[in-house]
Amino acid sequence: MRYFVTGGAGFIGSNLVDRLLAEGHAVTAYDNLSTGQHRFLDLAKKQPNFRLIEGDVLDERKLADSVKGHDFVFHFAANADVRFGTEHPRRDLEQNTIATYNVLEAMRTHGVKSIAFSSTGSIYGEHDVIPTPENAPFPIQTSLYGASKLAGEGLIEAYCNGFGFRGFIFRFVSILGERYSHGHVFDFYRSLQKDPSTIRLLGNGKQRKSYLYVQDCIDAMLAVTRKSEVAVNVYNLGTDEYTQVNDSLSWICEKMGVHPTRTYTGGERGWIGDSPFIFLDTQKVRSLGWKPKLTIRQGIEKTVDYLRQNEWLFEERH
Amino acid sequence: MRYFVTGGAGFIGSNLVDRLLAEGHAVTAYDNLSTGQHRFLDLAKKQPNFRLIEGDVLDERKLADSVKGHDFVFHFAANADVRFGTEHPRRDLEQNTIATYNVLEAMRTHGVKSIAFSSTGSIYGEHDVIPTPENAPFPIQTSLYGASKLAGEGLIEAYCNGFGFRGFIFRFVSILGERYSHGHVFDFYRSLQKDPSTIRLLGNGKQRKSYLYVQDCIDAMLAVTRKSEVAVNVYNLGTDEYTQVNDSLSWICEKMGVHPTRTYTGGERGWIGDSPFIFLDTQKVRSLGWKPKLTIRQGIEKTVDYLRQNEWLFEERH
Repeated sequence: MRYFVTGGAGFIGSNLVDRLLAEGHAVTAYDNLSTGQHRFLDLAKKQPNFRLIEGDVLDERKLADSVKGHDFVFHFAANADVRFGTEHPRRDLEQNTIATYNVLEAMRTHGVKSIAFSSTGSIYGEHDVIPTPENAPFPIQTSLYGASKLAGEGLIEAYCNGFGFRGFIFRFVSILGERYSHGHVFDFYRSLQKDPSTIRLLGNGKQRKSYLYVQDCIDAMLAVTRKSEVAVNVYNLGTDEYTQVNDSLSWICEKMGVHPTRTYTGGERGWIGDSPFIFLDTQKVRSLGWKPKLTIRQGIEKTVDYLRQNEWLFEERH
Repeated sequence: MRYFVTGGAGFIGSNLVDRLLAEGHAVTAYDNLSTGQHRFLDLAKKQPNFRLIEGDVLDERKLADSVKGHDFVFHFAANADVRFGTEHPRRDLEQNTIATYNVLEAMRTHGVKSIAFSSTGSIYGEHDVIPTPENAPFPIQTSLYGASKLAGEGLIEAYCNGFGFRGFIFRFVSILGERYSHGHVFDFYRSLQKDPSTIRLLGNGKQRKSYLYVQDCIDAMLAVTRKSEVAVNVYNLGTDEYTQVNDSLSWICEKMGVHPTRTYTGGERGWIGDSPFIFLDTQKVRSLGWKPKLTIRQGIEKTVDYLRQNEWLFEERH
């Protein structure tokens, strides 16, 4: 198979690239390297079946030219930072919604008809039903990030029905592991490296969140894309547990051997659009025989190990 | 109140403009007159409180300048033609999703924080639950039109949560009545005027659809916007009945006094993305005391009367 991975130099994308190459596939990573990293592709670049195209998903012509000749697209390029939506609403619209449209049109132009998409549990907003299944009651959006990903989902579904595409929509919880380079573990680690005596938490620290280890996430996506036979496939990906931000911080501190004083910005939510409780029902993906190998705590500890070995990630961009 | 109505020269928009003016409000219609009609505003233009701005919702600067100073926006400008999504996917993205973003940003820039939005029952796709309530299980999109409106809904909800907006999302069935100028009654009427001996139906004619009379639709929207006190308001608008396209055609023929032979393009759906059965649960809006005054049949007959008196609508654009 010839795979095309947008955001292929990013955290999840580059891990997927390595996996697909290891399986013997040809892989093209398409990335504008705005948050992706050349170093994440050090392994991949040694493979003859690998190609990196430096390009932006908003560059329609380059995108279409690049997609040509592939069999399957993993569309992971995105503005993945859920926190700052209200500071620049256009970013989510462009990088998540319009970019997804561009990818779909590029595929249509060149007869590429299978797409997997990194959506998010954020599209459930603050749902009443927890754990939240894929067919939960129609949610209300609470973040620009969630809204922009929901729009991407709808576009993919419409292309499946209108143009005979096959679509795989994965609603992720937060993902952890090797090459993790933004999010709460990253922020806590950096802050505690600088000053281990104190740490500031967004909100009251009681937000309950779910996390999944990146290799488990990739196992799940590959299982779904290879076992499913319908046109539109929507799957939650997560563990069957959740943790409080406070506990997550304790595990990080223990692993780092630090004992900071905690201060809180207060309130139930860490930022506008933050959901105080994200916990996805993953029975659907489990019914395919998949289950995560790591617990949340193990995933967090692996992430701390990775960050400790890769402190270059905290340097200014190079 | 100072109302701003995008698509204010269109079918539903111009009827709303007249109603709001009759209630004594100041109203600005913003319309690019691509499908809107100057004649629909003949009454409005006699009112001192009325202003028409010829502008496009994709013209961000003009839109923002025009929105300034209003209290409430009815955002009705849209590509309303659900049938041709697969012929030009960009149209739905631009005219429905990006346009809605532009309206929200224009409002945010000038501190206008209340918006009502013409969404559609099409966002439910081909739902299992019929009649379909607002909180039905998370649907799968089947049309680019539906996907683009769903994206608009999500944006509005996110602006409510992120920027303190109040949003009113109305999921319409098909609307009928005075100034109706596209859709199946229009097409049937025009075809039968030209040649009353034969009529061609898209699909098998057994599609079951629901229709609402435009004045009932406006009554419902005004009832909701004036009674609701929460930030995000999602309401289905429709009648508590549905009709087969075949029966709808019979009523049109009876009203016109014609007896055509029917031919069918065949299949359950009239076009790609057509839903064979649209019937919305309207208990939520009824709980506010609203109910439609006309049946579907009465709405269709009123529409035929209107078309008969306004055959200029069938002429080439002037």
